[in-house]
Amino acid sequence: MDNLVALAKRRGFVFPSSEIYGGFNGFFDYGPLGAELKKNIRDCWWNDMVRRRDDVVGIETSIIMHPKVWEASGHVAGFTDPLVDCKVSKQRYRADQLFFAAVIVEGKTVGYVSALETERTAAELQEKAESFKRKKAIQGQLAPVAAKDMTEAQPDEIALIPSPATGEPGSLTPPRSFNMMFQTNVGAMTDASSVAYLRPETAQGMFVDFKSVVDTGRVKLPFGIAQIGKSFRNEITPRNFIFRSREFEQMEMEYFISEDADWAKEHRAWIDWCKGWLRSIGLPDSHLSEYNHPKEKLAFYSKGTTDIMFQYPFGVQELWGIAARGNYDLNQHATASGKPMEYFDEATKKKFVPHVIEPAVGVDRIFLAVLCAGYAEEEVKDEKGNVEKRTVLRLSPRIAPVKVAVLPLLKNKPELVAVAEKLYAKLKRKYAVFYDESGAVGRRYRRQDEIGTPWCVTIDFETIEKDGTFTLRERDSMQQRRISEAELFALLDEQVY
Amino acid sequence: MDNLVALAKRRGFVFPSSEIYGGFNGFFDYGPLGAELKKNIRDCWWNDMVRRRDDVVGIETSIIMHPKVWEASGHVAGFTDPLVDCKVSKQRYRADQLFFAAVIVEGKTVGYVSALETERTAAELQEKAESFKRKKAIQGQLAPVAAKDMTEAQPDEIALIPSPATGEPGSLTPPRSFNMMFQTNVGAMTDASSVAYLRPETAQGMFVDFKSVVDTGRVKLPFGIAQIGKSFRNEITPRNFIFRSREFEQMEMEYFISEDADWAKEHRAWIDWCKGWLRSIGLPDSHLSEYNHPKEKLAFYSKGTTDIMFQYPFGVQELWGIAARGNYDLNQHATASGKPMEYFDEATKKKFVPHVIEPAVGVDRIFLAVLCAGYAEEEVKDEKGNVEKRTVLRLSPRIAPVKVAVLPLLKNKPELVAVAEKLYAKLKRKYAVFYDESGAVGRRYRRQDEIGTPWCVTIDFETIEKDGTFTLRERDSMQQRRISEAELFALLDEQVY
Repeated sequence: MDNLVALAKRRGFVFPSSEIYGGFNGFFDYGPLGAELKKNIRDCWWNDMVRRRDDVVGIETSIIMHPKVWEASGHVAGFTDPLVDCKVSKQRYRADQLFFAAVIVEGKTVGYVSALETERTAAELQEKAESFKRKKAIQGQLAPVAAKDMTEAQPDEIALIPSPATGEPGSLTPPRSFNMMFQTNVGAMTDASSVAYLRPETAQGMFVDFKSVVDTGRVKLPFGIAQIGKSFRNEITPRNFIFRSREFEQMEMEYFISEDADWAKEHRAWIDWCKGWLRSIGLPDSHLSEYNHPKEKLAFYSKGTTDIMFQYPFGVQELWGIAARGNYDLNQHATASGKPMEYFDEATKKKFVPHVIEPAVGVDRIFLAVLCAGYAEEEVKDEKGNVEKRTVLRLSPRIAPVKVAVLPLLKNKPELVAVAEKLYAKLKRKYAVFYDESGAVGRRYRRQDEIGTPWCVTIDFETIEKDGTFTLRERDSMQQRRISEAELFALLDEQVY
Repeated sequence: MDNLVALAKRRGFVFPSSEIYGGFNGFFDYGPLGAELKKNIRDCWWNDMVRRRDDVVGIETSIIMHPKVWEASGHVAGFTDPLVDCKVSKQRYRADQLFFAAVIVEGKTVGYVSALETERTAAELQEKAESFKRKKAIQGQLAPVAAKDMTEAQPDEIALIPSPATGEPGSLTPPRSFNMMFQTNVGAMTDASSVAYLRPETAQGMFVDFKSVVDTGRVKLPFGIAQIGKSFRNEITPRNFIFRSREFEQMEMEYFISEDADWAKEHRAWIDWCKGWLRSIGLPDSHLSEYNHPKEKLAFYSKGTTDIMFQYPFGVQELWGIAARGNYDLNQHATASGKPMEYFDEATKKKFVPHVIEPAVGVDRIFLAVLCAGYAEEEVKDEKGNVEKRTVLRLSPRIAPVKVAVLPLLKNKPELVAVAEKLYAKLKRKYAVFYDESGAVGRRYRRQDEIGTPWCVTIDFETIEKDGTFTLRERDSMQQRRISEAELFALLDEQVY
């Protein structure tokens, strides 16, 4: 993971936001290659989800919506994290990330220890308990500590748990709800009447505009409304690079189905579609798995949620959530706005509020997944047979920032350069291509391997002296073969879209 | 303009945001066709500005950046509008949009009148002055009123100017600065230490990341850094549909040049490039003009700013600003961050802070411009020679939401439908296409005219009985001709990219 983050920075995929000002926790910038990769992920999704399907239309709704949207959706009341304050240090902690344990000697609780969530929270609590017992010079057998987080603390325990900031008990507050939506004020006034929120998800845009789309979009059930856009969540502890950040980009789709439809079948079909799409952009099946949310943890309206999980270097984590949400959201907005959200079915002459299947995925999480899955350090033999290290990013041609690198064998041979420049100009009209004439060809291949360019085309003496074909060098196999211009365009046309 | 706004809503180009909650002033949603049109404008710009040029790279920076960025850029101190409060009604007005005039009778000032900025502000003030004189029963000759806005009001005048809300003087305050940046809080605390802003422009991202791009992007002066993304400004009076809204999308580019470069030449070259690009997406030259900001109104560091103006139905307005900003921005960030922003020129062995040319345009303004320029209501003859009205949107094939509509002549002829569906599937892989089999062909043409589809392809009996060619119907000329599948793909390949 560290090598990957270093590569991402070195080759201009991802930078910390505002880096010259020391960075800004939870915000990231995408450099030249990152911006291309991100755009390609979005474009592939949009093409496959919207343009190539007859049953899905796209929309773009505003990031700042009417605050009543978030009251109706339940986010104002319920989109919260439990936070604990330390009154002395003024630090705040997420209650579920602040752990404590009773120090129990010979069956008697003699005090408490605390630690923040890390990979070795339990070990740290054990050490602290031992140290506590030693310092207080308490005799007897220390029981193994049992870690709990602050959401599990009893009211009478809270005053006894030491703050991680001061090491002393007495300053921690009980957990309190903290809304994760970023808040702002719209208009000339800065008071309660002007409060608005940055959307924490794009999905509500589809529900709020449901009727407008039905009235103007010539859609018939079942159909989907899709959207790509930025969302914002004021995470207390952003982490794992771009996996959990405060500003991120979502690709969400609401697939509306009849109230009588077999939701489980539709749900399954979307899980399969999403997995197929992830494979189509190069994620290996071996890294994908499914997690079904247990029934007892689902919201009352939810019929089922399945997450497609991805094996990141830091663990198996949620990549794509596919939720069967019934018709809860449309009903909420119908009630709050007083506008009916019914759909009239021409075939059955029935009027009803459609149900919905919601596949929701983050662009940044996919971005990280393709980097993680594609990154490899290999030992290969160079032209002289020496073993050398190569860093390679095995990105699918569909999303690779550069599709082809055009390399004249030698930069001081005008005949080679002229052909190379002509080919480059021709390719550039339709594809992201890169022209590189500096250094040995082997070294130029390595530079392209590192940024995931699937093919290099070398213009050599055979090109100008024989049949005009080029050397096509393939990134993953490192095999080389001759290819004509027409074949090259056909290859790109087939592989890139 | 009203017809255009109605079409935009009826056909799903643009909806008011949160419309079921009564809308949200200054925010808009883009429906199925609008989302496609918007994406096409962005993609054309990105292809032409970034992918097809060797001297420009793209980036994507975060909307929320470190607050120090906006201190260094001058936005915290200076990005303000002057506002006037009415203490009685609690209304706020932009001082430069609230007008007043002295009522002068026989050379003596007898009172004041006020009016908000409209198309007939001057006339309204004149009427109010006459009415004032009548009510107060003042004899003598009324001088013609001279309208001024509140930024020009003398301190002793302010108490005498009536509030537009109450009609009575005494309640207006002197103009006060109001920062137009939306403010929020990042992290667990909600205090001065956590204040952050939604970016009011994307440009600062390019300056802040300048060094990172130079270090990783293999760029050499002159070169540009481009970005597309949302920006936010808390406009007091959003207006003219999507022309001036509170959330909008920008396409900006910072073109860095040597300190010794001929900036005026580079500036001119970019103005020409931008105008050429606007023509390439279908804006007619007749609607474009240039406005040079007068020297005395420029900021001290600015060398010159030229706006490309577009003739909207509501007046000639700024579309694309091209500013020569010297090296002010990089210097500001170098000073504020302590990080040098110098570029080392290999050729001259000189180190310097580059100067910059900044072409900045709004996606929504281009969107509105292409709708305005393309919208027409015409009288045409139908197949039977009857005159009928047609509404047509003459959008360039590069940006039209639908490139081709595929129409089987009759929907109850399986042979026609089969060929049509096959062609549709083949086109759909690469292009946004629409399949329509319902209604008379003439009516189907009209539906496509209205949304700007450049071509309709009809599968008729000649197709299946003769040579497989289709009828290609061209939107603007309404001419029809036979075309083969290969010719159709060649036409699209040539016209769409």
